[in-house]
Amino acid sequence: MKAVVLLSGGLDSYTAAAVAKAEGFALDALTVRYGQVHVTEVQSARKVARALDVERHIELDVDLAAFGGSSLVGDGAVPHNRAIDAAEIPSTYVPARNTIFLSLALGWAEVLAAEAIVIGVNALDYSGYPDCRPEYLHAFERMAALATRAGVEGKGLQIFAPLLTRSKAEIIRIGAGLGLDYSLTHSCYSPLPDDRPCGRCDSCILRARGFAEAGLTDPALHT
Amino acid sequence: MKAVVLLSGGLDSYTAAAVAKAEGFALDALTVRYGQVHVTEVQSARKVARALDVERHIELDVDLAAFGGSSLVGDGAVPHNRAIDAAEIPSTYVPARNTIFLSLALGWAEVLAAEAIVIGVNALDYSGYPDCRPEYLHAFERMAALATRAGVEGKGLQIFAPLLTRSKAEIIRIGAGLGLDYSLTHSCYSPLPDDRPCGRCDSCILRARGFAEAGLTDPALHT
Repeated sequence: MKAVVLLSGGLDSYTAAAVAKAEGFALDALTVRYGQVHVTEVQSARKVARALDVERHIELDVDLAAFGGSSLVGDGAVPHNRAIDAAEIPSTYVPARNTIFLSLALGWAEVLAAEAIVIGVNALDYSGYPDCRPEYLHAFERMAALATRAGVEGKGLQIFAPLLTRSKAEIIRIGAGLGLDYSLTHSCYSPLPDDRPCGRCDSCILRARGFAEAGLTDPALHT
Repeated sequence: MKAVVLLSGGLDSYTAAAVAKAEGFALDALTVRYGQVHVTEVQSARKVARALDVERHIELDVDLAAFGGSSLVGDGAVPHNRAIDAAEIPSTYVPARNTIFLSLALGWAEVLAAEAIVIGVNALDYSGYPDCRPEYLHAFERMAALATRAGVEGKGLQIFAPLLTRSKAEIIRIGAGLGLDYSLTHSCYSPLPDDRPCGRCDSCILRARGFAEAGLTDPALHT
């Protein structure tokens, strides 16, 4: 079984990929450089791809900053110390990002005749981002079945999102159980000049809470 | 009403855009440079965007050649004088291309709060390409409604494909009725060194048949 994994360099996609690998998928990794303000993420993706021993790792440039509309691609400041449990869609939401990423993965999956696309979306993401909800992923799967040669031939493509209903603490425990080295990963939306995580953006706060709840120490803070 | 139109530089997307404009849409145009072997198409897209008087024209680079799998991005030769009425999927099919293009347009449409994406797919395309069939476009529309902020707020996004059931001759007649200048457009999959159309690829053959059936002369052959 072959799968294309969307690898961001964060701990969610690393864990999702490792779960897929443990379930028997041979992995190819796709990292989309979409004009995010920080590139540390991409360097982490390379380290994670090596740790996962993927067959091929493609880094693809897509300048989503051309469209604007998100603080993650330089349109406005990344919020700090925000009340992240609110139900609103945060400014770090990149319009249609998962749809664009899944579509690119779909193109490669079709060439490779892969049976799945692996994505690390999870319960925390889908509380705020519309394109992380289970009903969205199912709709993408149905669309993909009609979009491709494999679909025409009756072979579907699975969107494998093993962390979908998991909290950050659960994800970290799953990864710890698989022996993952989270010091390779990078989650911060606005790193300090020396590349260390800021500790104040949504992503840093959720990561710190996750490690605390899991009763573990974040190795990325001590390297 | 605002719409993002996917503009390739060919006559189908030009005509689809003009139909949308005639129906009252204000247009922004997106051209995806996806590693196609010939760039004449992109120059034509610029001319067409000017002729349509679009508000903004974004050209976005996405190197789909990184995935391989299509003669249109340099993977094998573009077929010449092929029996194009056969039911098979041709080698010029680019895996998941329309899904990728529509997804990128969706990202921009969300930022612009546009109500539609305009695409020039038509009956001839969907006889061979899976991602040109009406059921595919409907599935994309359903997925998009779940993917976006607008969708969450109950506002859908229409995939406007006014040429879907039209033959090439019908498209050309529609365009002629709207006064379009098809000398601006470019359809050839493998142009000659001096940029003139080859006359032998699927796209040239279908275009020539279309003009002949419409009883019109192709102005692009006489410039």
